[in-house]
Amino acid sequence: MNKQLLAVSVVLALGGGIAAEVLAQANPNQLISQRKGAMNLQVKYFGPVLGMSLGRAPYDAKIVQRNVEYLTVLTQLPWDDFQPHTAGSPNTKAKEDLYKDVAKFKAGIDSLQGEVQKLAAVVKGGGDQNAVKPAAQAVGRACNSCHESFATFEFRFRVE
Amino acid sequence: MNKQLLAVSVVLALGGGIAAEVLAQANPNQLISQRKGAMNLQVKYFGPVLGMSLGRAPYDAKIVQRNVEYLTVLTQLPWDDFQPHTAGSPNTKAKEDLYKDVAKFKAGIDSLQGEVQKLAAVVKGGGDQNAVKPAAQAVGRACNSCHESFATFEFRFRVE
Repeated sequence: MNKQLLAVSVVLALGGGIAAEVLAQANPNQLISQRKGAMNLQVKYFGPVLGMSLGRAPYDAKIVQRNVEYLTVLTQLPWDDFQPHTAGSPNTKAKEDLYKDVAKFKAGIDSLQGEVQKLAAVVKGGGDQNAVKPAAQAVGRACNSCHESFATFEFRFRVE
Repeated sequence: MNKQLLAVSVVLALGGGIAAEVLAQANPNQLISQRKGAMNLQVKYFGPVLGMSLGRAPYDAKIVQRNVEYLTVLTQLPWDDFQPHTAGSPNTKAKEDLYKDVAKFKAGIDSLQGEVQKLAAVVKGGGDQNAVKPAAQAVGRACNSCHESFATFEFRFRVE
């Protein structure tokens, strides 16, 4: 069991150089758990940044700084776990369209990562709540846009 | 639904300054999902580092570097989601002992984070497989030690 899990993990996090037939061995439920985990953590750390920037909670620059630092890593993690053989699993709410229009999915990822980089630059530059707000809204819109295309459930950030 | 989720997230990632009664409002299943997500991602990225350092897969310094960078963030994420009101949920495999010996749990977290910092220093310093191996083993032992104390299931890394 441990051995199996380790083997799967080794395959998973090896990145782009792996042949498709090797990735096809990865347990779909493990892939789905991993990407859901990364998605949940994006919500955990982005939710407060957006909420505080919009004035829904008291603004705390230290928490914003920490969370945005985490997000620069977290927004890199879910995507390689969206493998075609996970489509159709009862455990996922991702639309199968995702695997039919990979270019659009990839553009959505690039958009999110780009907006997070911009947000991180604002925060590192000492930007205050007024400066963080539009950058956080842009990140939220990037999340929402991809969900509108590729998720079967209704989760959206309220960005206004 | 969105509103609720955002509110929970805002509370969650605000860190140490929140009164216990506020945290008690957080949905236990959301907390459990978040910490499981972080745990799964630790396995996703640490598994290959350990496996490659032990010669179970071809050693790739770039992947080791990337994964260890991710781990310096990921090993900070699960812990604030272990809140006493999540104990007894059918969705968790954490022992309730965890909330009875918080000092021991905290020591386990400190040990893991310390070993990950040491691993990161080896990797940043250009350490090769021989140098990474003992540092990765120490991280694996830190994971295993805490699981032995506080997890009801058998997951362990094979560190030899």
